[in-house]
Amino acid sequence: MADASLDVIGIGNAIVDVLSKADDGFLAAQGVAKGTMTLIDAARAESLYAAMGPAVEMSGGSVANTIAGIASLGGKAGFIGRVREDELGKVFAHDIRALGVRYETTMATDGPPTARCLILVTPDAQRSMSTFLGASQNLTPDDVDPTFLRTAKAVYLEGYLWDPPEAKHAFRKAMDIAKGAKSKIAFSLSDPFCVARYRTEFRTLIDEARIDILFANEHEITSLYETEDFDTALQAVRGKVPVCALTRSEKGSVVLWDGAVHVIDAERGVRVVDTTGAGDLFAAGFLYGYARGFDPHRCGRLGSLCAAEAISHMGPRPEASLKELAMKKGLIAS
Amino acid sequence: MADASLDVIGIGNAIVDVLSKADDGFLAAQGVAKGTMTLIDAARAESLYAAMGPAVEMSGGSVANTIAGIASLGGKAGFIGRVREDELGKVFAHDIRALGVRYETTMATDGPPTARCLILVTPDAQRSMSTFLGASQNLTPDDVDPTFLRTAKAVYLEGYLWDPPEAKHAFRKAMDIAKGAKSKIAFSLSDPFCVARYRTEFRTLIDEARIDILFANEHEITSLYETEDFDTALQAVRGKVPVCALTRSEKGSVVLWDGAVHVIDAERGVRVVDTTGAGDLFAAGFLYGYARGFDPHRCGRLGSLCAAEAISHMGPRPEASLKELAMKKGLIAS
Repeated sequence: MADASLDVIGIGNAIVDVLSKADDGFLAAQGVAKGTMTLIDAARAESLYAAMGPAVEMSGGSVANTIAGIASLGGKAGFIGRVREDELGKVFAHDIRALGVRYETTMATDGPPTARCLILVTPDAQRSMSTFLGASQNLTPDDVDPTFLRTAKAVYLEGYLWDPPEAKHAFRKAMDIAKGAKSKIAFSLSDPFCVARYRTEFRTLIDEARIDILFANEHEITSLYETEDFDTALQAVRGKVPVCALTRSEKGSVVLWDGAVHVIDAERGVRVVDTTGAGDLFAAGFLYGYARGFDPHRCGRLGSLCAAEAISHMGPRPEASLKELAMKKGLIAS
Repeated sequence: MADASLDVIGIGNAIVDVLSKADDGFLAAQGVAKGTMTLIDAARAESLYAAMGPAVEMSGGSVANTIAGIASLGGKAGFIGRVREDELGKVFAHDIRALGVRYETTMATDGPPTARCLILVTPDAQRSMSTFLGASQNLTPDDVDPTFLRTAKAVYLEGYLWDPPEAKHAFRKAMDIAKGAKSKIAFSLSDPFCVARYRTEFRTLIDEARIDILFANEHEITSLYETEDFDTALQAVRGKVPVCALTRSEKGSVVLWDGAVHVIDAERGVRVVDTTGAGDLFAAGFLYGYARGFDPHRCGRLGSLCAAEAISHMGPRPEASLKELAMKKGLIAS
């Protein structure tokens, strides 16, 4: 692992979440696909927002949430992603910097507004996301500064980055830089429909051994290998990436690590309010542990703990200090 | 009471809250007065925001919160208050309309941005507020439409409206219209320091019998009558307004109603997370009950119930359906 001053640098879409409660009837009436992420345009964002109930705004974005979690654990982290210089863009930049994260991507001064994700949370605590990518689409390879990237032990990239065409090039550039710097490349499959959109490319990345650490939930890994069976998917990915964390909601996670299989429990006794951010925060705990040289089991347990905090309240980012929670559980030394 | 199609129309500053957790040390370092509302200018808003931790944005404003609560109870309500046509202004307008509230005040297309209130919530659940009034300051008497106002059984005004000079004239115009329409005038003293700023004028309003229903907490009513003793303040206001609801946090409230004194309990067993909106939501329950012709005790109990919901989570507006909560308690017929 490279000598590095940051634990993790994340590259992802820079998004403000707009969270509201809704019932299944509303999802059906609005044609919102439950439990997944759908890309929407500006007009649809406006009409869906107008139909939604009262909402709460808070910073989101999958990789950005992970980076926020790493900072809350006491990790040193950076983020790259584009907002526009508007009110929501300032909210995003404020929130991530207030956590001590290095975030220096230039704000766009024209073009589409800051990205927003309209998140409908149903009484079963499931979140259904409609994302207007806005200014996120203007992330380019120029925003990926090699000197900055080389300071990280791991670089974390989201599958969602393949949606904005230019961001994909930024993604590839980041992979090349990280490889040169011997930083580890961590990658999240993001969403089953995202996997369906880019299945061939994602499988190529894995087959070409470009990925050091892979994150996926059950739906994403089975979508990647076009199977309905989790174990078939697990065997398909096994041996192709050095480390792979497969999350299974309340069933915990399965961690493949240098050939061995570790089964990790989910946190028990959690009152689930809103699953937004569960996967992102699992990745936060896991990556923090990985960057600090923890063993597979401890990385997984940290992931479970951080995910449990995220689902216990509305919104994706931690409300409590993850560092304090982890210290109480003996997962981080005080 | 006038024949009316709305229960309550509120007039107040239209504000988006920016809520963050902080400790007493941060309040001290930033010179934020604990538990009260301080007016700040744009530069101070920027510097305090930059120093604050990650935040969550949601619609606020004292009277606007009350109106949101009345809507959540199933009441018919309207609101008058000015935002600018910017992202936060659209958030404010969306949230209040999404509750079914009639809100038609024209958005400002220039001038200062939408008002925001930086709210620091300390571990003791107290909120300390720093408000940049922004576009709220541009509410004028022209925004108070007599035809609209005459549709309400009660018009609810906040003491905070005396801070923006033009809004005070809007306040006076609304009082005159309501009087002509035989709508009741409800008035909140808002904040002890607000009372200190306008003590003479507020006392004159009361002495001239312009107020039908007065809301104040212990600190506000004692500030109004410049005494440290709650009972002295209570006796001073007694007989000067037909209805007066004096709230005392966990000690419940005292309701003066046509000369009689009713002592109302606070809700029991509430886990207090954030006191933001407690007084606003007490007023919501009370005013809804008043507009529906409930007796003093039932109005007060509804107030207690709504306040309890508000303090059980971050942010001022109800997360649960207040109508359902009130139906469960038998305070509203199903």
